[in-house]
Amino acid sequence: MTDPIRPTDDDARALARTLLSSATYAALGVLAPDTGAPMVTRIALATDPQGQPLTLISDLSAHAMALKANTVASLLVGEPRDRGDPLAHPRLTLQCRAHFTRHGEPGHTALAAHYLTLRPKAKLYSGFDDFFHVTFGIDSALLIGGFGRAWRMTAADILG
Amino acid sequence: MTDPIRPTDDDARALARTLLSSATYAALGVLAPDTGAPMVTRIALATDPQGQPLTLISDLSAHAMALKANTVASLLVGEPRDRGDPLAHPRLTLQCRAHFTRHGEPGHTALAAHYLTLRPKAKLYSGFDDFFHVTFGIDSALLIGGFGRAWRMTAADILG
Repeated sequence: MTDPIRPTDDDARALARTLLSSATYAALGVLAPDTGAPMVTRIALATDPQGQPLTLISDLSAHAMALKANTVASLLVGEPRDRGDPLAHPRLTLQCRAHFTRHGEPGHTALAAHYLTLRPKAKLYSGFDDFFHVTFGIDSALLIGGFGRAWRMTAADILG
Repeated sequence: MTDPIRPTDDDARALARTLLSSATYAALGVLAPDTGAPMVTRIALATDPQGQPLTLISDLSAHAMALKANTVASLLVGEPRDRGDPLAHPRLTLQCRAHFTRHGEPGHTALAAHYLTLRPKAKLYSGFDDFFHVTFGIDSALLIGGFGRAWRMTAADILG
């Protein structure tokens, strides 16, 4: 078998950007605070004005407790929406660091307004004190285009 | 806000079992061998004759390399298939240990035949030497039924 990693080109960058900008949700990987094991949960997703992944989560969620103990995270976006072979669908794995913006902190009002423009249903809970925004700073990425087609990328490849 | 964790009942167990048994793919969380960070990728999924999660992966994949270095893993199943609010859809997070069954090892022939009955398209690569089966032993689970509805479960709750 041959190494599936290919040289990054503009088509691969465009695919990665489209997968991220069109995602309405993601699988979030964190480290469970009690065991250090990986833990994968679902979060709603949008992007901030710089194109970085952005979500809104509650202090009561398992992933919020984990991220507050350790901000290292991974995101998977690019979900099959049909019944075809799930491995044929492109997907993007991001290695990230989480940054929090809580009510009353600098930038919260603008970030919350931006998020609600993209995800208006979040208005139901955006104002609750226990909900806060998480922006994911991208360290690196792995794009899988389908069987045997993969690219390793930098934040610059994805954010432009 | 109140604790979203509810007492486990038969309806919650049935929902968790349905989410797992009907999943054709999952988000897999592993520890990246170079950094120890969580890393989330997509795998195809079925269940073994005991109802445990079962997949077929290649040595060339990033998740295979990670699992061979550390077998601790997490799975997320229960994917939204439509454009509704992704947080309203139920999903199941499993904390697991990966067990490998390679070509030529005891039980491989029966496990591969079982997998191909459930996932016939995998016939294209099931015979390749670098592809091996991974069974995920369940340590614990977190079922999210929607907003503010969650249950913590044991392997027995899910496997019966």
